[in-house]
Parts: sequence; C-alpha cells; structure tokens
Amino acid sequence: MIFIDACKGKKTPYTPIWMMRQAGRYLSEYMAVREQAGNFLNLCHNPQLAKEVTLQPIDILGVDAAILFSDILVVPNEMGMELEFIKGFGPKFPKPLETYEDLENLDMSASEKLTYVYETIKLVRSELAEDKALIGFTGSPWTLATYMIEGQGTKTYAKVKKLIYSNPDYMHKLLQKLTDVIKEYLVKQIEAGADAVQVFDSWASALERDTFFEFSWKYMVEIAEFIKEKYPETPVILFPKGVSGYLDGIYGNFDVFGVDWSTPIELAKEHLGEKYVLQGHLQPTRLYSKDAIDSGVDHILKTMKNERHIFNLGHGMLPDLDRNNAKYLVDKVHNDSSKF
Amino acid sequence: MIFIDACKGKKTPYTPIWMMRQAGRYLSEYMAVREQAGNFLNLCHNPQLAKEVTLQPIDILGVDAAILFSDILVVPNEMGMELEFIKGFGPKFPKPLETYEDLENLDMSASEKLTYVYETIKLVRSELAEDKALIGFTGSPWTLATYMIEGQGTKTYAKVKKLIYSNPDYMHKLLQKLTDVIKEYLVKQIEAGADAVQVFDSWASALERDTFFEFSWKYMVEIAEFIKEKYPETPVILFPKGVSGYLDGIYGNFDVFGVDWSTPIELAKEHLGEKYVLQGHLQPTRLYSKDAIDSGVDHILKTMKNERHIFNLGHGMLPDLDRNNAKYLVDKVHNDSSKF
Repeated sequence: MIFIDACKGKKTPYTPIWMMRQAGRYLSEYMAVREQAGNFLNLCHNPQLAKEVTLQPIDILGVDAAILFSDILVVPNEMGMELEFIKGFGPKFPKPLETYEDLENLDMSASEKLTYVYETIKLVRSELAEDKALIGFTGSPWTLATYMIEGQGTKTYAKVKKLIYSNPDYMHKLLQKLTDVIKEYLVKQIEAGADAVQVFDSWASALERDTFFEFSWKYMVEIAEFIKEKYPETPVILFPKGVSGYLDGIYGNFDVFGVDWSTPIELAKEHLGEKYVLQGHLQPTRLYSKDAIDSGVDHILKTMKNERHIFNLGHGMLPDLDRNNAKYLVDKVHNDSSKF
Repeated sequence: MIFIDACKGKKTPYTPIWMMRQAGRYLSEYMAVREQAGNFLNLCHNPQLAKEVTLQPIDILGVDAAILFSDILVVPNEMGMELEFIKGFGPKFPKPLETYEDLENLDMSASEKLTYVYETIKLVRSELAEDKALIGFTGSPWTLATYMIEGQGTKTYAKVKKLIYSNPDYMHKLLQKLTDVIKEYLVKQIEAGADAVQVFDSWASALERDTFFEFSWKYMVEIAEFIKEKYPETPVILFPKGVSGYLDGIYGNFDVFGVDWSTPIELAKEHLGEKYVLQGHLQPTRLYSKDAIDSGVDHILKTMKNERHIFNLGHGMLPDLDRNNAKYLVDKVHNDSSKF
C-alpha cells in the first residue's frame, strides 16, 4: 500500500493523498446514506451504512486511503455520557462533567462497547482494494475532555481552561482515564483491520505552549507509544491542530505528523521533517477555485519533493465544496508529485 | 508617560501594563453605565458615557494606559452598512456586501462621521492623568472586510475565503477602501488626543501564510507607514492574532508588535524583539487563578527582562473574570518587572 509505505518514510512513485472529512456532506451519495440512517449518530452506529460512506471517496475521488466513518464523541458517549447531535448547533452532552463523582462514574470498559466501530472496520477492510489503506482514528484526550467539560463546542473554552488553572488534578485524572480507554480502542481498531491510526487533537490550539505539552501532547505520545510497542508495524499519525508556534517542542515515538493549513509547510519541514513523515496541508477553502488548487498544490509539492510526505487538506472538507474540484486535486497530486 | 516611553523602546522603571477589553463586563461599574446607555452601540455613540467606561480601569486597576471605548464595527457602520448587536449572538450586518455596486456605495467620507469617537477621545484626554496614555484603535482592513462579507462572526470564513480565491480583485478593492478610510480615522483620533494607536487584526489567524501577507498585513503596514509619516512621534501598535507561524515574514515601519497568547513569547522575541517593542501576552484564562497569574507573569517577565516590553493579555478580558485578580496582575507586573 502506497499510503502505508509513505507513512513509513519509504520512497513512493507518487505522493499519496486522502482528505480529512472526505466522506461528508459535499457528496450527494453521502447525503443519501445519511438520510437512510435517519441521523448522524445512527449512521455511526450502523456498520453497513458506515461502511458505504467510508468507501465512497475511494470510488468517487480515487484517494489512496479510506478513513473510518465515525465520530470522535462515540468514546465519551460509550463512557456513559448522553450525547445529542442538534441540527444547526452540533454535538451536545446535556450533562457535562462537574464533580469527582462524575469522573468515577465514567465507564472504563467503553472500548468493549464500541463494537459497531470494529464491525465497520471489518466490513470496509473486506471490501477495500488491497492497495488502499484503511485509517482508524480517535479524538485526543484533551479534545474529548474539552467536550465533556464544556458540554458542547465553545469559542472561549472558559470552563475547561478555568479547570486547568484552578483544579489541574481533576483534568489530569480525566485525561488519564481517556488515555487508557483510547489505547484499548485503537488496539481493537487495529485488530479489526485498520492499517494505520490517527489521533485528532482538534482543540490543541486552545492551549498555550506549556499547557499544550502538559495537558494534551503528553497523553497523545503515551497513546502513540503504547500502540508502537504493541503493533510496531502500524503507522501512528498525530494531528494537533494550530500549534505552529510549538513545533520545536514536538517529541515522541510516532510516524506521521499532521500539518494544519495555518502551519507553513516549510516550518514543519524544518522542525520535524527529518524525524517524522509530514501529512498535509492544503487550505480547504482553496478547493473553491482550480487556480487556488494549482498554486497551493505546487507550493506544497515543491517544498516536499515527493519525500516523506502524504498529501491532505489542512482541515476538514467543507460541505459546499465542489466534488469536481476535489477530484481535480487528487489527480493533480497523483500526476504532479513525482515531477518535483 | 511610561507607556509611550516603552512603546519607543526607552528603558522604563517598570513594565507598563494595560489589558485588552479592560473596560468590560467583568466590571460592575461598566455594566451600570452600559445599562444607562440602553445598549452597546448607544454606549459607543455617547461620548460622555464612553468616556466614563474608558476611564474606569485606570481608577480601578491602575493600568498605565486607557484604551478608547468603542467598537471596530463603527467604521463599516459609518461607511453605510446597517449594524445590529443581537443579544447572545453578537454583531450582525443584515445586508452584507455582495456586488461591485455594494462596494461603490460605501461612503468614503466615513471618518468625518465618526465625530462621537473623536469627542470621546477629547473628553478622556482632558480628564486623564498626565502620566497615563490614551490609546486609539481600529480594526484592520481584513478583519473589517470579513465582517462586511460574512455579515456576522464566523467559524469557517467560508464566504470571505471563497471570495479571496475566486475574486481577489473584489477583495483588494474593498481592502483598499477600508485602508483609505482607516488612515483618516486614525489621523483624526490622534488629532483629537490619542497618544498611540493600535490596529486589531482579530481574524489574521483565518488566513494561511501567503494570503495573510497579501490580504491583511500589507494593508496594515500601509496604514502604519501613513501614520508614521504624518505623526512620527505617535506609536503605532499592530496586533495580528494567531500568526505564530508567520513571524519571520513580519516587516514594516511601526513601533509595537502585539503578541497573542498562542505565540510563545520567546519565539516573538527571537524573531521580532530587536526590531519592535513587544506587547503581551498572558493567556486571559490564567486570571481565574492567582497561582496561574504568578507562574504566567514570572515566565513572561523573566523572558523580557523589563526591556522593550509592554505587558498585556494575549486576548481580551473575559466577562466572568474576577476584578481582584486583574488588580493583582497589575500590581504584580508593576512590582516585579524591575527584578528580572
């Protein structure tokens, strides 16, 4: 698999590409299946339908890897937190964590309940072409903890940041619980057939430098090293979003570093390119225009020279993007990456 | 004025401090005046009341500079765009810009209509102690343009980014118009009595590196250099939020660079500390705890050593912060900054 070879830093004939949120609302085929499921959470819970949407971008766009269709919040949900997806608002935990008792009540056997995820992975892997990779994933402890404390998406992170500074012990206990659950969750994803795993730290940018390393990165590395110990051949991708000022502090045993669009690719290469394979980082809104795709892709390919690089967007695909432009991007990366 | 001396890079007996959004909802005195005004926009339009809230943090906290109480959106408002502040939602332009005709209809004499701002400045300056500075301000062209295109705050910036890539000509025309209005607006603020001016680029972090320099920074520098040409003695502060990955590209003739909390202060010092005075950058949520204030302040003071530095928060004050902690912060900076 070219994607897995690239994750391991091997030279590949062209730069492989996949796109965050490649199975999403910009595809009418996705919308049809989601309609069938009734709602988003049902879709996550239904392995047959989740398999279908996971495979769609492979067929439609020709990307080199499929990523499990699921949601990062199924983990806290199976740890016992009631979860709602409210239309036009997003996810919500009606009863966010508040007390130490709430922490004690979290179900540490959650990874055993996420059977629908492993079932989806088995179904996808059995239908996916042999040369295409399947990526499993999880949210990072910090990102999940943020949702569990705030109860919903937030602009200010006021509750969780207050907790960091006023009661760090509580945060660390929660983060360790999440870390322990996630380790088993990823192991089970790999055992079900995932060829690589990615940890999304979507809220990394909410933390200042020291607190990022203390409350987020440390736990991500713990998870990565646990996986690398148990399955050394399975690539681990870490994606902390929006930490361009902290690159010189990045450490740990993992394979691929996800570069978001706000981190200049030259800067990522300078700090991390020798130690890690880089994945990224086209600004998704460039997909509104072929000219913007051309100039953006040229810049990235020229910088990375088809070495130790996996192409991706620097953030998730947007719902109103044109699928033809997405296909144009995939073809361009495949055709042009060996020229630089 | 110690604040102005510090802006010019002169050695000062201690590090001066002010706080973004220091006149705000965390002060009951502010809430009382706002109540009196009826609503937020009325408060901006009423020089007598705006003066009162501008002066409150000087009296209550002992900060070294007052910042004009106003809102960045009064500029597009006076350029002819209807503006609403909706409770629990924020600002809204019910008729965002869409066509070239909309651009043509923008009132380029807006700076002449912002008389309530200049009146506020005159009133504040006449009552403010001689050793305290008064800072005037504006939003950056890019940040104002974002609101004018999106019509409201946004998480994805989808409309304005689509425009950047699909019709850059439109964006540049809009940005130039804003730049021209803002130049005159700041000149008039200085002529009314502002001792320094700050340009807030709150949405800088929405742009990837190249587009940041093309669509935002270029215009901020044009404004700064216009002011420095006309009033060389008036310090100009530029604050692009969330650009820690782009610091090596910062250029232009201005005095002070505002460092947000996500940019490590060491990194800012390394790239910009010799050329510019740095202002910043305590994470506002640290004000939830005295311990967090202590460790954060120590770190910043130790790095900057009371040289070429103005203390500030790395983002605006939050509504639920404790004023006693704000006062504690001001006193600590005043007392400790000469020790390092």
